[in-house]
Amino acid sequence: MRLSYERMTWQEAGEASGRLAILPLGATEQHGPHLPLSVDTVLAGGVAGALAEALGAVLLPALPYGEAATSEGHPGTLSLTADTMARVIADIGRGVHRIGHPALILLNGHFGNRAPAAQAAEMLAAEGIAVLCLDYPGLEDLAGAICESEAAGNHFYHADEVETSMMLALAPEVVRMERAVAEYPDFPADFGSRPMLLRELSESGTFGDPRPSTAEKGRALIDGIVAAALLEVAAFCEAHGIEAGAWQR
Amino acid sequence: MRLSYERMTWQEAGEASGRLAILPLGATEQHGPHLPLSVDTVLAGGVAGALAEALGAVLLPALPYGEAATSEGHPGTLSLTADTMARVIADIGRGVHRIGHPALILLNGHFGNRAPAAQAAEMLAAEGIAVLCLDYPGLEDLAGAICESEAAGNHFYHADEVETSMMLALAPEVVRMERAVAEYPDFPADFGSRPMLLRELSESGTFGDPRPSTAEKGRALIDGIVAAALLEVAAFCEAHGIEAGAWQR
Amino acid sequence: MRLSYERMTWQEAGEASGRLAILPLGATEQHGPHLPLSVDTVLAGGVAGALAEALGAVLLPALPYGEAATSEGHPGTLSLTADTMARVIADIGRGVHRIGHPALILLNGHFGNRAPAAQAAEMLAAEGIAVLCLDYPGLEDLAGAICESEAAGNHFYHADEVETSMMLALAPEVVRMERAVAEYPDFPADFGSRPMLLRELSESGTFGDPRPSTAEKGRALIDGIVAAALLEVAAFCEAHGIEAGAWQR
Amino acid sequence: MRLSYERMTWQEAGEASGRLAILPLGATEQHGPHLPLSVDTVLAGGVAGALAEALGAVLLPALPYGEAATSEGHPGTLSLTADTMARVIADIGRGVHRIGHPALILLNGHFGNRAPAAQAAEMLAAEGIAVLCLDYPGLEDLAGAICESEAAGNHFYHADEVETSMMLALAPEVVRMERAVAEYPDFPADFGSRPMLLRELSESGTFGDPRPSTAEKGRALIDGIVAAALLEVAAFCEAHGIEAGAWQR
Amino acid sequence: MRLSYERMTWQEAGEASGRLAILPLGATEQHGPHLPLSVDTVLAGGVAGALAEALGAVLLPALPYGEAATSEGHPGTLSLTADTMARVIADIGRGVHRIGHPALILLNGHFGNRAPAAQAAEMLAAEGIAVLCLDYPGLEDLAGAICESEAAGNHFYHADEVETSMMLALAPEVVRMERAVAEYPDFPADFGSRPMLLRELSESGTFGDPRPSTAEKGRALIDGIVAAALLEVAAFCEAHGIEAGAWQR
Amino acid sequence: MRLSYERMTWQEAGEASGRLAILPLGATEQHGPHLPLSVDTVLAGGVAGALAEALGAVLLPALPYGEAATSEGHPGTLSLTADTMARVIADIGRGVHRIGHPALILLNGHFGNRAPAAQAAEMLAAEGIAVLCLDYPGLEDLAGAICESEAAGNHFYHADEVETSMMLALAPEVVRMERAVAEYPDFPADFGSRPMLLRELSESGTFGDPRPSTAEKGRALIDGIVAAALLEVAAFCEAHGIEAGAWQR
Repeated sequence: MRLSYERMTWQEAGEASGRLAILPLGATEQHGPHLPLSVDTVLAGGVAGALAEALGAVLLPALPYGEAATSEGHPGTLSLTADTMARVIADIGRGVHRIGHPALILLNGHFGNRAPAAQAAEMLAAEGIAVLCLDYPGLEDLAGAICESEAAGNHFYHADEVETSMMLALAPEVVRMERAVAEYPDFPADFGSRPMLLRELSESGTFGDPRPSTAEKGRALIDGIVAAALLEVAAFCEAHGIEAGAWQR
Repeated sequence: MRLSYERMTWQEAGEASGRLAILPLGATEQHGPHLPLSVDTVLAGGVAGALAEALGAVLLPALPYGEAATSEGHPGTLSLTADTMARVIADIGRGVHRIGHPALILLNGHFGNRAPAAQAAEMLAAEGIAVLCLDYPGLEDLAGAICESEAAGNHFYHADEVETSMMLALAPEVVRMERAVAEYPDFPADFGSRPMLLRELSESGTFGDPRPSTAEKGRALIDGIVAAALLEVAAFCEAHGIEAGAWQR
Repeated sequence: MRLSYERMTWQEAGEASGRLAILPLGATEQHGPHLPLSVDTVLAGGVAGALAEALGAVLLPALPYGEAATSEGHPGTLSLTADTMARVIADIGRGVHRIGHPALILLNGHFGNRAPAAQAAEMLAAEGIAVLCLDYPGLEDLAGAICESEAAGNHFYHADEVETSMMLALAPEVVRMERAVAEYPDFPADFGSRPMLLRELSESGTFGDPRPSTAEKGRALIDGIVAAALLEVAAFCEAHGIEAGAWQR
Repeated sequence: MRLSYERMTWQEAGEASGRLAILPLGATEQHGPHLPLSVDTVLAGGVAGALAEALGAVLLPALPYGEAATSEGHPGTLSLTADTMARVIADIGRGVHRIGHPALILLNGHFGNRAPAAQAAEMLAAEGIAVLCLDYPGLEDLAGAICESEAAGNHFYHADEVETSMMLALAPEVVRMERAVAEYPDFPADFGSRPMLLRELSESGTFGDPRPSTAEKGRALIDGIVAAALLEVAAFCEAHGIEAGAWQR
Repeated sequence: MRLSYERMTWQEAGEASGRLAILPLGATEQHGPHLPLSVDTVLAGGVAGALAEALGAVLLPALPYGEAATSEGHPGTLSLTADTMARVIADIGRGVHRIGHPALILLNGHFGNRAPAAQAAEMLAAEGIAVLCLDYPGLEDLAGAICESEAAGNHFYHADEVETSMMLALAPEVVRMERAVAEYPDFPADFGSRPMLLRELSESGTFGDPRPSTAEKGRALIDGIVAAALLEVAAFCEAHGIEAGAWQR
Repeated sequence: MRLSYERMTWQEAGEASGRLAILPLGATEQHGPHLPLSVDTVLAGGVAGALAEALGAVLLPALPYGEAATSEGHPGTLSLTADTMARVIADIGRGVHRIGHPALILLNGHFGNRAPAAQAAEMLAAEGIAVLCLDYPGLEDLAGAICESEAAGNHFYHADEVETSMMLALAPEVVRMERAVAEYPDFPADFGSRPMLLRELSESGTFGDPRPSTAEKGRALIDGIVAAALLEVAAFCEAHGIEAGAWQR
């Protein structure tokens, strides 16, 4: 990754200040017996990196903690409150704006971060700072087209064929396919309507069947997400009067 | 690193819940023309990893953002407020406690994080959660013994021979020695007593002379810091009644 | 409504303290040229009343203000911040718990309230207080089956045939059908991904075609929502060990 | 009520944006065995409506919850903290200002709301937003002149002849005079100087003698309060340079 | 003052931990051309000292800053926000409780501190800490009986014969009677109902006529306030089950 | 002290508004068996007064409470949280700025106040308000040169020869030398790295040997601190473009 803040000096950051900035939002959260706690950080970082390449944007260091209270029933999950998460994003957004980047793009890899990301975006909008919140755009259609196994629930991908394939594409060295198990929970009628520990639903922490996962599927999913994201970014830049020429050099 | 949360599954985290947990505190901050913005994150992570190995402790994902307002005069610096930083650490500390780890050790690589780390430790102490804040213990003596160049100021090591040597030991691929310059600022009489942008003092962002840096010196510094840290951890565990046998397997 | 806090004395509240409590979440927000600013409050209150009747639950006074920043482009919208809204709900939840009601059911009539309702539910859950967040369950299927006009967008019902029909069923005296207009906005690719004023999309404030609305359709929608809600409440009570006998007298 | 936000569309709100806006502050609080929990909301709303008519002001939806911790000893009381209440009022005040109304008038019907209303007014004043806090002006003289029974204490009217008469004037259908009882508590020397549950003082929740109440007295009280309020509003508008011609059309 | 924390050692504080603790609440606020900015602190401290003597209570250091936004129109006024003031009192109350003092008595000398003192008392009550808020009890009757000049307004004593006499009794060396002037403002109809700078009402900062002030009157006022306070303290201790024998040795 | 807010009227404050303002930060904290709880307030006030004289600055009333959690193991300590302390300082700083004083100088007499003072200075800097935080500059060298006894630890002076000598110079009437004892704690390896009650280290509350203290040494220490402080103030004023002529009349 050429334009990563992790590798750039301050002088290079200054020269790149006209470019969009992308912040990956991850989590430290259980992901079944075959995947590490860092899945959401790795995936958000990987997708964000591909998007940054496509856009000529700078890639900021990924946030490795997120709002993951629903997974606290399994050890290894470390969650920020929604309020803390929103503050972190807002502070970073103010810095991005001060440096001169025309907008902040949040590339979110974890469901629990959606509400705090939107809240931070509202706070920053009130200060005149443009923020786009991306949550793997297009994923539902892509998963339907690319994956073999059935999804465990609507819009719900966790430690399954989707996430495992993407991990095989991005960081195969930390995936242990031999431990992968399938688990299809019975979702109660009030799923999503009350605070709930996912452990009530899945003892293994898997939601669906990760066994047919392949790196190839993972790459196809990532490419599709990036393609959908580019459309959102184009609309966003148009709405904010950010010219492509200004940042896509 | 065997016991890194980034690589462990939730089941492995559960099995390791009797061990101490180490959280590296980094920053995204200017470090002169020859070092990347991620220096403090890389160094805190590297020292924390070595300490975790020595202790048989688990290593948590490093926080890549910290309180760095004094460096906002240079592009590339992204700072959290002290309040946000303290909340992040406190949230993580509560999770560490819930999982069952007997204590949280903060391994801090950036000056601005000291106050929020101490504030978070106070908050957590009031909830019965034990926290130790380590700031490169022993560094002043080690720097005096190991480094050739003079330090720019008391207890002040930034983009100099200390930090550059440690980077050469841990991540030489992101160090560009050919760009290294020496700069010895004139510290005003009120240095440290008022909010101040470091850019007023050093245009290059360097404080001291990084040119004599070597990976060997860096390894010696890290080894010395870890040795000093082990003494603090031993005293800390004794004070909190944490038996070595419980975590140092 | 027999068991409405607005009409009950404190002694009657004491006698009803074993029952579930339902709090309607409304808003003061633009709803096109033919509907009043109170639509979301009226609808949430009406559905909550029907659900309370079906459950033998007590009905709390509806909150007439909600998080409606996206509608601030039209006059007449008065929005609470998400943080304020979450605090209001949490304070009420603590009172409900103190009185002895076994759980709080939020019956939400406005999109912007979802995130603060969920945040308040998380806060209350951490204090051992059970909360269920209902957002017109089953509405998408019901709207597809009952309404003639096309919806303006996915899961998006605002001043259209759905809301207007429900208003005709609950408060026809404040509906002025002669002013109703149809408007089908072009949603940009980044709709839902950034803070946005709805006025950018619809000058009239209508999203869809309210003209085929009838009170009969409204009653059918309300009946269907209540039926779906009863299933969620049953699952919720089972999960929390609240026996039907305790509250459904 | 012609100019009620509950009945107006956004276009009508836009046309009325030059008018003063009145927000009734109520509560959900015990009011003895003969009055419902909504007394303060009904009364504040009724007085605010009469004042709005007299001024040509717009009437905002009443807040049905307030700061009522002193009544938590009786079931049925649902209290917001003072901090939450102040935030709610401040958020609404900012919206009123954004729409263009020249000032916000708070018409408060509950003692506990005084401090948060004043705090919100201070916050808004610092942002250049004009707020007037009305607490039934002139009530003490009016009660002395109109009511037959003695008041239970200085400036203290709760579920007594004052409030019951006003309820008989505004909402007789929820008053059950046959249950009305008189109770004259012994106020301890430190009454008003410490946090105290009113239940320590009055088991019934009545303070005084509601039995001589009549709707006629209630109308006289309301008329007198409105007359006194008009004088305050005139002084307030003069102090803020708000011309009568601008809003009293 | 025998039992003043300012003079006691920690061992003496430990021995006195069974006694009531009195915290004077002052302000740094304009008090006309003849009185210093510290009037409220001096008076609250003096009355609190006399009360502490009478009760055998410990006297805590006076808070020299309070909520005084209404006086910011005159230079020399330094105001805390109501929120800050409430936090300060609450923190001190928690310490008083930790040490073992059975209750905290706030002796308030400044109008603006009333709301934050009451808010802090509510917060502490929720934690089981007993607090009594005293605001010069009995002052209105005493002023009527002892002072010659007319009061400027109801319950309003500022830089007038009351405060000046009390200052002559407690700290005559900082009173400059030769500069004393009388000023009787016209209070507008909305006085007390909106945020207002007192400078709009009184250019000199005096409210009433300080010229007939004498130290003798001041002593009589202080004695009367202390006598009234003792009655409140007795009721308060009875309500909280604090036996006189436990603290009045 | 000629220019003390405690003695000045608002008119005098107005005339002095071009001068620097000095705020002493104290504490209510145990100081061994021979010193009162007010040591830090007395010393900060005394040094601040001497500095104000030298600078022609105004002296604000000292804050008698500070962040002293580490001393809560001894009775008599009353601590503000760091957050509360920072808010108090920030509120005062805003008032100082509003009055027109060109800068606020914090003269801190207590270790625990350092972090909140720095945090407040950062907050105020963001609002364009200049703040200098002075912590007895030069004390380490002065103590080494003037005192006979050995210090208990690095940069750690508490109830020892330094503080006792300064008290003998400023307020000998509250020092009871006959009770003075020496105590040299064993500092554990993790001293300063974790929340710790000082009572674990010193039962008497003394750190070092106060017995050789004299008023003469105290005066020399104070003179030296003031001399060092003047250098910092000069640099600070130069950095902020505050001309000596403007304030040093």
